[in-house]
Amino acid sequence: MIEVTNENFEQLLPSIEETIRMASFVAIDMELSGLNASPALKPTLFDSIEERYRKQRETVNRFVCCQFGLTCFKRDPFVNKYTAKSFGFYLCPRSLGESRSKRFAFDASAVEFLSDYGLDFSKVLNAGIPYLNEEEEYSLKQDLANDCLIELSKQTTAEFEYISSKITKWIASFENDKKQEWSESFYVDYVPSVNDFSNYLLIKELRRNFKNIWIKTTDDKGTHQVVASRVSKEEYTRIALEAFKDEEFAIKRSVGFSQVVRCLIETRKPIVGFNMMLDILYLYNDFYRKLPRKLNTFKKEFVELFPETYDSKAIFNNSKKYYPEMTDLFNARSLEELYQILRSKEFLSRFLYQPVIESESTKGKEPETLPHDAGFDSYASGYVFIRLAHMLAMKDKGITKEAPTWTDHLRAVNEFKNQINLIRATVHFLDLEKDDRNSIRPQWLVVENRDKSEPLSISKVRLEANF
Amino acid sequence: MIEVTNENFEQLLPSIEETIRMASFVAIDMELSGLNASPALKPTLFDSIEERYRKQRETVNRFVCCQFGLTCFKRDPFVNKYTAKSFGFYLCPRSLGESRSKRFAFDASAVEFLSDYGLDFSKVLNAGIPYLNEEEEYSLKQDLANDCLIELSKQTTAEFEYISSKITKWIASFENDKKQEWSESFYVDYVPSVNDFSNYLLIKELRRNFKNIWIKTTDDKGTHQVVASRVSKEEYTRIALEAFKDEEFAIKRSVGFSQVVRCLIETRKPIVGFNMMLDILYLYNDFYRKLPRKLNTFKKEFVELFPETYDSKAIFNNSKKYYPEMTDLFNARSLEELYQILRSKEFLSRFLYQPVIESESTKGKEPETLPHDAGFDSYASGYVFIRLAHMLAMKDKGITKEAPTWTDHLRAVNEFKNQINLIRATVHFLDLEKDDRNSIRPQWLVVENRDKSEPLSISKVRLEANF
Repeated sequence: MIEVTNENFEQLLPSIEETIRMASFVAIDMELSGLNASPALKPTLFDSIEERYRKQRETVNRFVCCQFGLTCFKRDPFVNKYTAKSFGFYLCPRSLGESRSKRFAFDASAVEFLSDYGLDFSKVLNAGIPYLNEEEEYSLKQDLANDCLIELSKQTTAEFEYISSKITKWIASFENDKKQEWSESFYVDYVPSVNDFSNYLLIKELRRNFKNIWIKTTDDKGTHQVVASRVSKEEYTRIALEAFKDEEFAIKRSVGFSQVVRCLIETRKPIVGFNMMLDILYLYNDFYRKLPRKLNTFKKEFVELFPETYDSKAIFNNSKKYYPEMTDLFNARSLEELYQILRSKEFLSRFLYQPVIESESTKGKEPETLPHDAGFDSYASGYVFIRLAHMLAMKDKGITKEAPTWTDHLRAVNEFKNQINLIRATVHFLDLEKDDRNSIRPQWLVVENRDKSEPLSISKVRLEANF
Repeated sequence: MIEVTNENFEQLLPSIEETIRMASFVAIDMELSGLNASPALKPTLFDSIEERYRKQRETVNRFVCCQFGLTCFKRDPFVNKYTAKSFGFYLCPRSLGESRSKRFAFDASAVEFLSDYGLDFSKVLNAGIPYLNEEEEYSLKQDLANDCLIELSKQTTAEFEYISSKITKWIASFENDKKQEWSESFYVDYVPSVNDFSNYLLIKELRRNFKNIWIKTTDDKGTHQVVASRVSKEEYTRIALEAFKDEEFAIKRSVGFSQVVRCLIETRKPIVGFNMMLDILYLYNDFYRKLPRKLNTFKKEFVELFPETYDSKAIFNNSKKYYPEMTDLFNARSLEELYQILRSKEFLSRFLYQPVIESESTKGKEPETLPHDAGFDSYASGYVFIRLAHMLAMKDKGITKEAPTWTDHLRAVNEFKNQINLIRATVHFLDLEKDDRNSIRPQWLVVENRDKSEPLSISKVRLEANF
């Protein structure tokens, strides 16, 4: 798995986009900073789809995606083989000047959960990749175009004052000493912020402050410097065009990870996940546009962006009917369990023409099982998707002479396209393309202890079922 | 500076408490995950003290203290010298079972600020020390005493199921093989959670699950194991007393860092800070009790806990009148600037009998200047406190024959005791012991540009002054 932080994102982006373009489908997974904004917003067995959407919209508004896993699967056209390339992106919202700063929440139990499964939070908060959705990007561009006041952060203000005083002294010495050449430049060491946009604002503010001095930054082997160069008025006007490019680049860096999601939208690749209701809400809200109030609006717009979404969990739940005898398989309770069963010799040998699934990121070796690492989980979701699709493709075939193609696999799961699994609700999945069935609350709910020797406590039932 | 995370906290606690007990005074500083819960809650020039308290109470309810700096200063009774020992504690709220989990917020700009000044967030979120205030501790104890349902977290449930199945198999093999001894024990490797309380709940649940099997954990050179031992009924009853001790220990670990604050309260040491309004609110709310609704209640109760609090910023602001000629000193705008001026040869040579201030944590060497590291900032706050106290002690003395003692220094700042600096408000400080002056809003506020050649924009003024 390739780990991507803000330090290598810019450099890797072109090859990531290329990998997406070449993919047959893209599997995703997210690790979130929390799930339930408050106990009242916990999913219950009696949630209608609209209620669930309303609750999860609150989750999306409060918590953030800390780690975004993306695995591109490519079917080899000549061999019965899928190649997988996995990326784990660490994300963190960054401010756009002191007053445009997002607040986001962590749930202590989510922090422990992710810590226990090995997430390093310095990669998230110290080195995360920023992102903006379209609305945020638009509003930033408007503010920049209208030259609205964007205040420097406290630490950038300190850098600004330090560098300004150095440059001012340099100019004074220069004016006193007529012998120096006009072209001479002056270098000041500086410590860039983890927020690239703050670094841009610093340069912009320095340029505003010193007329006829051109300000740039250089980065030579990790030594960051501000370069001030004395230029003529004519030259200044010419060079000043650079400022537009710098601004465009600063905006691009702030849009950050959303560029990857935009590439998914542009290429209209099938998206695969596992139990991905929250994932698709985050995909829309954080990287495209604020979630609409109405579920139906969301569904319509989401399908326009991502015409083919497959939730491996929904496929799994609904394939049971075709293979009722495979009790071991259908007892799997988590992505990890399912993944382990589907890669067992026992399962693989049940169906002919099992495609090879090769992890390119680990040079062909099986990737290390790292449950709840978004990169690994996206790989496992895609792996599960292929194995289930193959199982379904083989269901009517019996003994054939040729291995199913990618088209065959896709056709086999077509009935599950755009069906998103729902946990604990009145219906089992959300269909992005059809009107949802009326959700009918059961008239009676029969509750009994698994251990029938113990008496049933109504308070325990209430706590467990959360109603 | 000694860095303290959950990994070494338990081991260091006795020596930390001992250091506090020996101290003449204790300087503190906190780094917070955010300052303003919303733009409407930003401090303004027109806040009355009550309004400020109401706003900052919101801050305290939403954000958390990520790093708590504590420096114990001890005056040598025989030499004109203070010895300083600094600790930097990394803190993180932990859940008490799945449903008792705190949500806490980060402000993106605070995350960047702390990142830019070198805070490693893995020390906070992956390895932070937990804490509970008295109310939270009481409620936890009640729940445990009443055997209220405390659910295991998802990852602890997975561990529980894994270990249970292993032990069940062992018992079965044991029952089949009569030759084995009764005393035999069985070991299962396990991965402890970062949350010690979850680890306790795991053992408690295993004990509940296996009657007449005693369950313990061992930790041998980083290899964590659960040990199941078959014991007789009589022995079980005897050993079961251990369970009480385990529970007490688990509660103690959850109270965590609050033990340090309790030691400060018990020893009634003078507390020193710099611009410490938010710090004293956090001190009370997170480690003692939820902040009361009324400011006056808070003031009364805080002084009962901490009878002597000195805000070096308030001392600094109010000493100007005694030394109006020291413009360089009184132009300092931050703790760091003030610290640098007060340790300059120029300042030190102005007053006789300057005490030596020696940092024990850095073996007598001057500690590295690390602004906005809570450990360093607590050292700098205490350093500034001593230098200002000495300056004030010398003010009436002229040439004396003896260096001022700790009592002299304390007497010199007595007029500033329990005066807490307020930024941007109608009055300049909060007096914890006296009724606050009526805050009078000025009838007119005259605003002009520093650069008088530029026109004044009312929208910019509004944004800057935040009214």
